[in-house]
Amino acid sequence: VAADPFSAPLTEKLVGIVGEAHVLTDPSTTAAYEIDWTRRWRARARCVVRPADTGEVAAVLAACHKVGAPVVPQGGNTGLVGGSVPRGGEVVLSLTRLNNLEPVDEVAAQVTVGAGATLAHVRAHVAAQGLDIGVDLAARDSATIGGMVATNAGGIRVLRHGPMRRQVVGVEAVLADGRVVQRLGGLTKDNTGYDLVGLLAGSEGTLAVVTRIQLALVPVPRVRVAALLAVDGIETALVIFSRLRRLPSLEAAEIMWADGVGLVCRHTGRPPPFAESYPAYLLIECAADDDPTEMLATTLSWTHAVHDTAVATDRQDRERLWAYREHHTEAISAVGVPHKFDVTLPLGALAAFEQEVRSHVAKAAPGAQVILFGHLGDGNLHVNVLGPPPEDETVDDVVLRLVARHGGSISAEHGIGVAKAQWLHLTRSEADRAAMAAIKHALDPRGILNPGVIFPSRGAGGGQQPS
Amino acid sequence: VAADPFSAPLTEKLVGIVGEAHVLTDPSTTAAYEIDWTRRWRARARCVVRPADTGEVAAVLAACHKVGAPVVPQGGNTGLVGGSVPRGGEVVLSLTRLNNLEPVDEVAAQVTVGAGATLAHVRAHVAAQGLDIGVDLAARDSATIGGMVATNAGGIRVLRHGPMRRQVVGVEAVLADGRVVQRLGGLTKDNTGYDLVGLLAGSEGTLAVVTRIQLALVPVPRVRVAALLAVDGIETALVIFSRLRRLPSLEAAEIMWADGVGLVCRHTGRPPPFAESYPAYLLIECAADDDPTEMLATTLSWTHAVHDTAVATDRQDRERLWAYREHHTEAISAVGVPHKFDVTLPLGALAAFEQEVRSHVAKAAPGAQVILFGHLGDGNLHVNVLGPPPEDETVDDVVLRLVARHGGSISAEHGIGVAKAQWLHLTRSEADRAAMAAIKHALDPRGILNPGVIFPSRGAGGGQQPS
Repeated sequence: VAADPFSAPLTEKLVGIVGEAHVLTDPSTTAAYEIDWTRRWRARARCVVRPADTGEVAAVLAACHKVGAPVVPQGGNTGLVGGSVPRGGEVVLSLTRLNNLEPVDEVAAQVTVGAGATLAHVRAHVAAQGLDIGVDLAARDSATIGGMVATNAGGIRVLRHGPMRRQVVGVEAVLADGRVVQRLGGLTKDNTGYDLVGLLAGSEGTLAVVTRIQLALVPVPRVRVAALLAVDGIETALVIFSRLRRLPSLEAAEIMWADGVGLVCRHTGRPPPFAESYPAYLLIECAADDDPTEMLATTLSWTHAVHDTAVATDRQDRERLWAYREHHTEAISAVGVPHKFDVTLPLGALAAFEQEVRSHVAKAAPGAQVILFGHLGDGNLHVNVLGPPPEDETVDDVVLRLVARHGGSISAEHGIGVAKAQWLHLTRSEADRAAMAAIKHALDPRGILNPGVIFPSRGAGGGQQPS
Repeated sequence: VAADPFSAPLTEKLVGIVGEAHVLTDPSTTAAYEIDWTRRWRARARCVVRPADTGEVAAVLAACHKVGAPVVPQGGNTGLVGGSVPRGGEVVLSLTRLNNLEPVDEVAAQVTVGAGATLAHVRAHVAAQGLDIGVDLAARDSATIGGMVATNAGGIRVLRHGPMRRQVVGVEAVLADGRVVQRLGGLTKDNTGYDLVGLLAGSEGTLAVVTRIQLALVPVPRVRVAALLAVDGIETALVIFSRLRRLPSLEAAEIMWADGVGLVCRHTGRPPPFAESYPAYLLIECAADDDPTEMLATTLSWTHAVHDTAVATDRQDRERLWAYREHHTEAISAVGVPHKFDVTLPLGALAAFEQEVRSHVAKAAPGAQVILFGHLGDGNLHVNVLGPPPEDETVDDVVLRLVARHGGSISAEHGIGVAKAQWLHLTRSEADRAAMAAIKHALDPRGILNPGVIFPSRGAGGGQQPS
């Protein structure tokens, strides 16, 4: 970094834009921005810049663009694919100061917020009007709306409301060269050119930096009921889900196994959910204005495959059940640095994949521990492999090829980041990748935005046009 | 056209690809492809090519790309903004032979169909499984799924299910140079690079030619009830709608006025809906598994502003009510060649806009007739102006500037086409248009796909990169 001739003048320029207090270069202050949540991805930044508003973001990007300095946008840094931490020498553009919450538009059921606002803050802000965001996830206290848009976050309610892209009515975004695009009309019907809003959602900070987001809100249902069902395994869980999915009130259908629940209990000191231990657990939640408990009970009465059931209606009891699911990520990270795979399978291939992923990993990395959990209703499993060293990619290759063979997606909701860039070709053809690279080059011709993310090697995304 | 040195060899090449019977050059056979539904847009094509499958589409585009011959993709030719007919000398690429219907995937509630299949055919195909498409519109017998994706069609159920983009799970598309991109995994959760599927939806044939579409299907509700309410005007209709929108069963809330209904009655020979005539009519439809009639009646019992009501539950009666709404377009076209504007306003600005558009047009074009109708729940009005000659754009300018002034969209659901390209700047900033032009250039560097559509002048969209 010291050898970079642009380094000193750029940092000075950035100080001029955001103020000295908001350009961090000392390792003691930059460290938290330079390592990801899993501790698998870590590198030094050139500096960390913390702009206060869209104007400052625009000025920062214009300055970086001018000298071709690479930039890594960062929200709550809760990503799991290495997409929000430096690969070495980039400017980390932290958006957390853009946390403004604008008044809720009750007629339109919309709200516009800064990219740096956390999910939890925005939910609390709109709750006063009886409204909520359609997406929820365990990292809600840290994850920012901007990061959730950039990664098209999924979470536990995709079943009912779709992923983050579907909640986004409009954005304000800064292009690589510092120009600002605003689409904040709030109109749900608007066919005026290309869907830039949808394109930026899920582009992982490689096409533009989103600074403000206009969200469609959903009403908060009056009654919410969660149920934890002890079952023999994923096949039973799928049979039960196939009945439950007809309930319009169904919001979540999550699966976990005995080993993961055991880890959570050890990590958090919680008692196990039932007196006996069972092979797998299906956690479901329904929400409606009319109490859905009876309809849920009726639907479940058809099956004899549930060994035990815990039902919770009040908030505290529901949170107690959800804790078994939501503490999985941190309980796993407490054991070691996992290889994480966030994959979707067609529902019909899910049971076979579960068996095969366990046996294939056991063969490729003897002694490795495989912890599975995920969003059953979306066919979305989180595969965590503990044991192999972080830099060994044998297991990554085995798991992702297996997913592709079953017609699945190598990234359900976390994105490609740097973690999966080299496997993108498994499910995206050459023509498809060339089309994406052409779009990347069109919007970021110098390739400064999050290089190394999505496209296999640094700069590759910025340099290729379809021939 | 005759002076074009590439003309003869290209046509021969196209004959070699699709067969002589499917390259039309004789005016008697090409005429139907060269004029749009409103009769406002009309020009000669170089030829009309009717490929049978994706392979032939790819070969046709590769041939056209090689010589830089412009191509206008065409589906059912029911578009209303001149986007699917030639501007003069293009190859019209008719997709109607790609009308294959693949088996319904009942577990995933999805179906994959050819771009040329009509909405009505696909709906009939999936109805056997108790499924339907979330989008419906009056042109269902002619409009093709490919055209509906290309224009992100809206229609009468956006309120409940969103526009066409939301129904599309995957596409197969041919890029300008003939390369084929396939995203037909059918996974609802898939964050593997940019959302090309969503980007192509609404791109009006300017980025690629969609050849196959994978659609998410919705269950057919057991009971459906329509009601026609006679009211004093749009303000009353909006008050009623603000109550109705809380009903989860609400699928449609349409508005029309006495003059439009009068035209429909004269054109179709139908009796008027009620014994007396009223200033405006609100047509609503609810659908659910549990009969929504009582809930609808209860919700409406709060208002005293409804002068008369007709309720219909069986199909024939419902169709009788819907006929007043659905025959508007053809009844207007029977009178003359209208200037058509398909605009969204924020709900709060809708009533003011209605008054102002009438008075502004009366001033700009004395004697012109203004017929309004539309999708009240989406803030989406169809403004039809009869009287000024088709080529006079005074009225267009007045109406679209008024829309922009109220924070609306100059195209709610029809798209920009050629009709509104010169007004795109009213609601899309320079940076925004430059970003769109850069994407256009990235995917279609020679600018052969639907030139003149979306971007103001022929070729402009293909030639500009952000500086």
